[in-house]
Amino acid sequence: MSSALTDLFPHPIVQAPMAGGVSVPQLAAAVSEAGGLGFLAAGYKTADGMYQEIKQLRGLTSRPFGVNLFMPQPEYPGASTGPTGAANAAPPSGAVEVYAHQLAGEAAWYETELGDPDSGRDDGYDAKLAVLLDNPVPVVSFHFGVPGRDVLDSLRRAGTLTLVTATSAEEALAVERAGADAVIAQGVEAGGHQGTHRDIPENDGSGIGLLSLTAQIREAVNIPVVAAGGLMRGSQIAAVLAAGASAAQLGTAFLATPESGANALHKQALTNPLFARTELTRAFSGRPARGLVNRFLREHGPYAPAAYPEIHHLTSPLRKAAAKAGDAQGMALWAGQGHRMARELPAGQLVEVLLGEIDAARTALSDGGDGR
Amino acid sequence: MSSALTDLFPHPIVQAPMAGGVSVPQLAAAVSEAGGLGFLAAGYKTADGMYQEIKQLRGLTSRPFGVNLFMPQPEYPGASTGPTGAANAAPPSGAVEVYAHQLAGEAAWYETELGDPDSGRDDGYDAKLAVLLDNPVPVVSFHFGVPGRDVLDSLRRAGTLTLVTATSAEEALAVERAGADAVIAQGVEAGGHQGTHRDIPENDGSGIGLLSLTAQIREAVNIPVVAAGGLMRGSQIAAVLAAGASAAQLGTAFLATPESGANALHKQALTNPLFARTELTRAFSGRPARGLVNRFLREHGPYAPAAYPEIHHLTSPLRKAAAKAGDAQGMALWAGQGHRMARELPAGQLVEVLLGEIDAARTALSDGGDGR
Repeated sequence: MSSALTDLFPHPIVQAPMAGGVSVPQLAAAVSEAGGLGFLAAGYKTADGMYQEIKQLRGLTSRPFGVNLFMPQPEYPGASTGPTGAANAAPPSGAVEVYAHQLAGEAAWYETELGDPDSGRDDGYDAKLAVLLDNPVPVVSFHFGVPGRDVLDSLRRAGTLTLVTATSAEEALAVERAGADAVIAQGVEAGGHQGTHRDIPENDGSGIGLLSLTAQIREAVNIPVVAAGGLMRGSQIAAVLAAGASAAQLGTAFLATPESGANALHKQALTNPLFARTELTRAFSGRPARGLVNRFLREHGPYAPAAYPEIHHLTSPLRKAAAKAGDAQGMALWAGQGHRMARELPAGQLVEVLLGEIDAARTALSDGGDGR
Repeated sequence: MSSALTDLFPHPIVQAPMAGGVSVPQLAAAVSEAGGLGFLAAGYKTADGMYQEIKQLRGLTSRPFGVNLFMPQPEYPGASTGPTGAANAAPPSGAVEVYAHQLAGEAAWYETELGDPDSGRDDGYDAKLAVLLDNPVPVVSFHFGVPGRDVLDSLRRAGTLTLVTATSAEEALAVERAGADAVIAQGVEAGGHQGTHRDIPENDGSGIGLLSLTAQIREAVNIPVVAAGGLMRGSQIAAVLAAGASAAQLGTAFLATPESGANALHKQALTNPLFARTELTRAFSGRPARGLVNRFLREHGPYAPAAYPEIHHLTSPLRKAAAKAGDAQGMALWAGQGHRMARELPAGQLVEVLLGEIDAARTALSDGGDGR
């Protein structure tokens, strides 16, 4: 299905933006050069840090690429709500302080202090938007909510295509109504943070599998769907295309490449039998994110409060100290459910291999009579 | 991919066995007559009840069909383990009694007694196997564990093909090693009980999405894979075929048909906006099963113990009384994540519609250049 988005890059492969230093310009450039769509992750960066990466990427490729922004987290209900009115459920009073108390032993162990939970809720959103309007990029995607129509309109006038993550058909409808050019259907299999628009703990456990979600969103909206979550093989990309997606977004598959900026311990952990399964947890950030089950997640996940980004700020020094100490058991090892299928191929070569697998799956499917 | 299993029926569509009176002979006959594989569900029935249904089905169709058995639940560790050695984790001492106490108000409300939690752990497994060896059927599938190699060998000698459910690549390997003819890859999207071989509460939250699971199992074993979980459209069936499955198994899609024996309230609830989401819960049976979130699930799910089949027996009179009272809020409304896409078509017509959708998806995929 042709669209402004898919006309931008020849192959139906999008490299997922992975914040925290993973989606470096070298990775995005390699994917875009191979005919996919590379992505930078502006999350947790300053507006200037983001701008420097964009400049660096432009020096590496003249192909289209994207930049991902985290939506600002509105104050909790009771306070004024944010631009979308989509406030998260408020954590119980004192919940962040209690969690900080529960993490005191971690801070002592890693010989560091806990971070300040009130280090900011907006991730420099306005400043980043200003940079992206002054220096337009081909694609901007949004996570954790829907930008205002004015924001999407300004980006369109600047020549930028916009994508917004959705984890349900209702969220996809909100994305379409706001005027985005495409919606990212993020299945429960996805590594890292679920892009759920509002974090409501009572909905934990209702995360939707990608194949179910893709069909539900495909029938709910008319804009193109980019399917994300657990995709590691070309046969799976062919599968989401058959289910109505226009492209597939892969994170963990690219995290394992030499170009990715992920910590070496993180890359190794993906295929280490010690880390047999993944789980959605609030332990590291206060918002559900999928990571390999390690000591920190197992220990603190069960009582970590729904308080993003407070918990992200609180645990930031712990995660840094664990990485410095070479202790994967204390790091946030974000990974999708397909992590064991990760391949260490260079990113451009991975795109080529995936394209071959897509073709093979398509041929097998069309030769199969009734599909077999 | 041709195999003894797929050679048995022309179309890659299996009707999932749904215990509790849903998979009646009329439904299985309609699906088998349409060229899919219909299934009876022996779970919760007596061996003779199962036999009567088989006779009835044989009167309705001469096409191949399957019968599903629940594996007996071994005593908890400490007691002797069952044939596969795969005992579930033991519930904390007194957990069943505590839950019974917590359900006392339900019993009073529905004017009934709670059931006896110790009404049996083996679901008449040996007696049912004896019937199936005396009167062989084309296909037998197993849920909740792997039968002994001797059982699978006896069935093979009787001319019966065997399938066993797996929810991970490790479980699929155990299925292949035991000598089954095919493995059912059951994604976390699936309605009803997850067929996990051992119920280990600490693994809650690690359920794998179907598209990820299908690829993982496809690479782990050489036997054919039947993909199950959340499949409602032919495009999704084409998708799992592209991902390497040999057939797709659909439950909720057939639950909604007029031939299914599901309670009318259950059928209506599938597309009732009142029931917006599903969740895996132990509230009704003590083992994780996916149902529409209703009052009973919301209220009791958070503390229901891992104790199957004790909790199944305990809540059985409550569920019956709720159904009799016409109260969907107290029933086990098993449903997969695609429930809102349910269509009320007759089962045979549904198979025809799905086949048309598979063809359309395959054509779109092969016309798509790079898949679009």
